[in-house]
Amino acid sequence: MLSKSQIKLITRLKQKKFRIADGFFVAEGIKVINELLDSSLQLHLLFTTESFKSHTENETLITEAELKKISFLTTPNKALAVFKIPIQKNIDPQGLVVALDSIRDPGNLGTIIRLCDWFGIKELVCSKETVDCYNPKVVQATMGSITRVNISYLDLNTFLVEAEMPIFGAFMDGASVYRSELPNAGIIIMGNEANGISDAIEKQVTQRVAIPRFGEIQATESLNVATATAILLSEFRRSLS
Amino acid sequence: MLSKSQIKLITRLKQKKFRIADGFFVAEGIKVINELLDSSLQLHLLFTTESFKSHTENETLITEAELKKISFLTTPNKALAVFKIPIQKNIDPQGLVVALDSIRDPGNLGTIIRLCDWFGIKELVCSKETVDCYNPKVVQATMGSITRVNISYLDLNTFLVEAEMPIFGAFMDGASVYRSELPNAGIIIMGNEANGISDAIEKQVTQRVAIPRFGEIQATESLNVATATAILLSEFRRSLS
Repeated sequence: MLSKSQIKLITRLKQKKFRIADGFFVAEGIKVINELLDSSLQLHLLFTTESFKSHTENETLITEAELKKISFLTTPNKALAVFKIPIQKNIDPQGLVVALDSIRDPGNLGTIIRLCDWFGIKELVCSKETVDCYNPKVVQATMGSITRVNISYLDLNTFLVEAEMPIFGAFMDGASVYRSELPNAGIIIMGNEANGISDAIEKQVTQRVAIPRFGEIQATESLNVATATAILLSEFRRSLS
Repeated sequence: MLSKSQIKLITRLKQKKFRIADGFFVAEGIKVINELLDSSLQLHLLFTTESFKSHTENETLITEAELKKISFLTTPNKALAVFKIPIQKNIDPQGLVVALDSIRDPGNLGTIIRLCDWFGIKELVCSKETVDCYNPKVVQATMGSITRVNISYLDLNTFLVEAEMPIFGAFMDGASVYRSELPNAGIIIMGNEANGISDAIEKQVTQRVAIPRFGEIQATESLNVATATAILLSEFRRSLS
């Protein structure tokens, strides 16, 4: 049974300002919730239409109709959980760090978090304009990877000025990433969907790289930022394999 | 000024069955429409809140409120056009061909079409269960690339049985794609978002490849299909650069 105050809390958490004020975020679906339950995250509420064997003490069984009422998804997926937003950890800038300059699309951020997890990138730093990683659409797209990557929101320019590592950015006029020496430690900046890397951040870039295009001259002028991240991370890692 | 019958036609085109019956699809936004106008596609209707200089004879100026009424987007973007769906061209299986086994998400299909365009892949073949490439969300995500890649819907199994090319599929137990000899001609199969490559299609695969994971053992168990496509196409093309 859902209480009115629970419904109110969950509905509020769709908005960033209330996530910040309340300190909670929502995750949905058996697979994502199971991955978050296996992490150090602190569970606050768990509503489910089927029992989670390991969490029977914390869970509240609800009906499909009740789930539909609180779910943010068009097709609710058996369970909805509310977790505490963890305190932002210190950054440990070793190895490769991915830095995001104003990524706005939740699906793109979720996919990039999952890519960091796949390629063993521990630190993801985001400009303050980047979409909130506890946005429900981001949480869904990460498929649980959000618990294994340390995500920090900060003044990106200051972070880069103070960083003592090579700083990579992708630009059309950069050197082919296929022919560049790519180190095991460095910062890889990915820019905004519409405008790319901003002028201020571009000034901090020490190595300009490009993903070569093989299509005709009329071919698409850019790649989606998540697919560009996939190709760059694969290139940085392939020499280690 | 919009007529009632025009509004009715546009609304119908949200659904695949009406796109097939009517033979039209919708595209929105200045950038996408401009790319489609530059292609061999046949324009049927063009509604815009600002004049397209080159198409003044075919365009109808409408108000923001009218655009809002017909747009499929939450934030309408200045123009909406209706184009004729072109007749499916014959497949010319030379070089690399990408084959999709039941890709369901419009955003993923749109991103994969854009990747094919970037990497100079001319032929994209889709199983009949794959989402329709004239779905409005696919058209938006392709950013115009839809006019530069030949997209065919067919019985994928029959196509693969008859194909005289090596057939690549990505599987966890495949050989590292970073250490495999990758030819300039072949078919690369990408599988469904939830279930991967289906059993029947897997039997046609002649080379099993894997994208190595660098994270911890608990890391995410799979990549999003569009990012996996990005990494595979980059690997197939990098030796040519």
